[in-house]
Amino acid sequence: MTKYARIFQGTAFTSKTQKEVEILHNYLFCINASGIIEKIVSPEDVDYHTLLEAYEGEENFHRLDDGQYFLPGFIDLHVHAPQWAQAGTALDIPLYDWLNTYTFPIESKFSDLEFAENVYEDVVNTLLANGTTTALYFATVHKEASLLLAEICANKGQRGLVGKVVMDNPEQNPTFYRDATTQTALADTEEFIIAVKELAKTTKQGVYPVVTPRFIPSCTDDALKGLGELAAKYDTHIQSHCSESDWEHGYVQDRFQKNDAFALHDFGLLSKKSVMAHCNFLNDDDADLFAKTGTAVCHCPISNAYFANSVIPIAHLHSKGVEIGLGSDISGGFSPSLFDNARQAVMSSRMLEDGVNPSLPAEERGVPASRITINEAFYLATAGGGESLSLPIGRLAENYAWDAQIIDTKLATAKLPIFDESEDLNDVFQKIMYLVRPENIREVWIQGERVHSRK
Amino acid sequence: MTKYARIFQGTAFTSKTQKEVEILHNYLFCINASGIIEKIVSPEDVDYHTLLEAYEGEENFHRLDDGQYFLPGFIDLHVHAPQWAQAGTALDIPLYDWLNTYTFPIESKFSDLEFAENVYEDVVNTLLANGTTTALYFATVHKEASLLLAEICANKGQRGLVGKVVMDNPEQNPTFYRDATTQTALADTEEFIIAVKELAKTTKQGVYPVVTPRFIPSCTDDALKGLGELAAKYDTHIQSHCSESDWEHGYVQDRFQKNDAFALHDFGLLSKKSVMAHCNFLNDDDADLFAKTGTAVCHCPISNAYFANSVIPIAHLHSKGVEIGLGSDISGGFSPSLFDNARQAVMSSRMLEDGVNPSLPAEERGVPASRITINEAFYLATAGGGESLSLPIGRLAENYAWDAQIIDTKLATAKLPIFDESEDLNDVFQKIMYLVRPENIREVWIQGERVHSRK
Ligand SMILES: [Zn+2]
Ligand SMILES: [Zn+2]
Repeated sequence: MTKYARIFQGTAFTSKTQKEVEILHNYLFCINASGIIEKIVSPEDVDYHTLLEAYEGEENFHRLDDGQYFLPGFIDLHVHAPQWAQAGTALDIPLYDWLNTYTFPIESKFSDLEFAENVYEDVVNTLLANGTTTALYFATVHKEASLLLAEICANKGQRGLVGKVVMDNPEQNPTFYRDATTQTALADTEEFIIAVKELAKTTKQGVYPVVTPRFIPSCTDDALKGLGELAAKYDTHIQSHCSESDWEHGYVQDRFQKNDAFALHDFGLLSKKSVMAHCNFLNDDDADLFAKTGTAVCHCPISNAYFANSVIPIAHLHSKGVEIGLGSDISGGFSPSLFDNARQAVMSSRMLEDGVNPSLPAEERGVPASRITINEAFYLATAGGGESLSLPIGRLAENYAWDAQIIDTKLATAKLPIFDESEDLNDVFQKIMYLVRPENIREVWIQGERVHSRK
Repeated sequence: MTKYARIFQGTAFTSKTQKEVEILHNYLFCINASGIIEKIVSPEDVDYHTLLEAYEGEENFHRLDDGQYFLPGFIDLHVHAPQWAQAGTALDIPLYDWLNTYTFPIESKFSDLEFAENVYEDVVNTLLANGTTTALYFATVHKEASLLLAEICANKGQRGLVGKVVMDNPEQNPTFYRDATTQTALADTEEFIIAVKELAKTTKQGVYPVVTPRFIPSCTDDALKGLGELAAKYDTHIQSHCSESDWEHGYVQDRFQKNDAFALHDFGLLSKKSVMAHCNFLNDDDADLFAKTGTAVCHCPISNAYFANSVIPIAHLHSKGVEIGLGSDISGGFSPSLFDNARQAVMSSRMLEDGVNPSLPAEERGVPASRITINEAFYLATAGGGESLSLPIGRLAENYAWDAQIIDTKLATAKLPIFDESEDLNDVFQKIMYLVRPENIREVWIQGERVHSRK
């Protein structure tokens, strides 16, 4: 019989399709030494009892308690790690003031590695406590502090994809916070990529360097071109902001006479390892280009309510074959929880469908067929994130990493409203998605290792 | 020197105006035996040190720890207590199916007092743990179970305003769940009012009967008329749903050739003790009538994303002088937390202002000047709720009840991102409003009594 590193027994929820959730009722999940789910065994399977007999009672056998369930770990595709220091503040002011009065001054403080360590340790801990097992991070322009973030992810066991931010355009960035020159921006990025790849060699769960132009307005043409070349040379992930707001969308059209998507493509920045945040103003040609290049959209519904001037049509983009995941966009979004963002993704899609202005007639108010369900929002937070990153994560399925959250629905201090012992598991799933708090997340596992526990 | 029942020392946030929050930095709050804030003393006040000397170290002296703050208790103006049993489920289906397949069957089960007790105990506990010190409840059609809910509130120390729901219209309600006749509906309501008023005599924090026609479509003309008369006879609070959705708004226009507001007024159901849930489709005449009669709007932003087909223009209604509070609308809204609802109130107002459809030009997309700030959302959850109910609650001010939450921003398992010991208290307030979880709410006090503690 195969020797597994660990076996978990319990009921799990995982995406079957974009719209359907699969319930694996009381299954065994057999994890190998690399932290991969090597085998999933249903109670009807002939091996089930053989495995139970062999492992039950052993130290590496984990059975869920009554009322506990497995969910895949969440994949947060857009986190500004330094902005955790200001999460929840100044959301009542315009984007320009928010950036210049709050955000850039905060980010500039990350030249101080001690301050950086404080904030980065805390944001990684916080995301883990919220069930986020993989995060795609914007750090700051500082090479050293960005590497420190990658090291903190590595040490804490989180799968971190980290970008040193490039913002070299003197016309769009303040003097106190930008890359000194295009050359230093590119050289720092290359050194950063090499250092993170070195770190990755000893990091079980993986840590990845990400080519990160802040967004087109922040960067010179030469920087964008150089970053595309670095991404190709080192086969890295790429992240940026794309077609977020009326202002940004218009700026790029003025500068390049085309939309963000085509401009980014010209610079070699769209690939199957690219994730573009927001994308509210993608048109159908842009969407086709995303689908063709394998570029993913990161939907950040909480942030969008403040800064994106609109709701992105997720259902429409899914129908066009675009890969989509979910992001907190800390701190444009205030919440470090993808549960909160999944809830908001559903609500925002309903508001897009029905419209918002009650003084308009119903038929002129919204965009029909825009709603997504909580199942689809769950998909965005899990399997959709894995596909966006082209990594085997986001599902509790064979050959995927064992990245999981253990949810307790019966915790005394945060009990979910389940009053019927035989409640339908689809309803239990919905109650979990809508009502779980961080305290219900009792354990978090990444690549077969326990990285967070509230016991 | 006056003898106080308790003195609290610490920093508090309370609404000064609809838009401004007052910071009471390290004040003393002197509570009398009735649970009323008799005196508030600033550190500059001559009595401050005298009081400290007299009370410090005594059992009835409470000093906040470092990182802790007082907020007023929240006032939830719209909770369907029985629907807690289905919170978070079935939000992906249409309202009609949601009512008939889920909600009415669940509510009908409250003829079983044992089931009712299970759910009602849990919903009151849950609301307390979320900082809700006063709740305006819809129970069910059942007189006994509705009284049981009032008794549970009384026992647990929550200020409960409870309505036995009236739904006697055979054309709009299922046979398995409605009042048997108009006569029994009114007789049961009157008995319920008398029983709750009796219970109130021995309830320190107050418990109140509420005249509760479910909404106009649920009720016959005779029932609506009779309920208006009962409310006048016993001087009770009144609650219902008003102008919530396209369907409901249209139904009332067909039946009465006028909007809900004027129809309700005709039946004597608008008064300074009236609270109407949703009100998304109030026009300016309706709003004037609300302002004139002192009728309050209960805004339920999470629920509205699912069922109201629009966003209510809160900023506009405030400018018209309408009183407005906040409601969870469990389980049309999934969350028992007014923190969650305050956050959503801000986001929904931003989405109303900016609009939602990215394929429209910016200037045709939204409704300018619709945004509210987090300060205004806080006002809705506290002082606005108190004004809506015409009760001295919702502020940490003299002659108000001591209804308070103690928020811990430094809790190890749910630390707020405050990295600077001298962080501006306005920013601390915003971080509290946007990031607090139930576990940060360490104690809840109502009318001078501790009703919830996580120590
Ligand atoms: Zn961003
Ligand atoms: Zn309601």
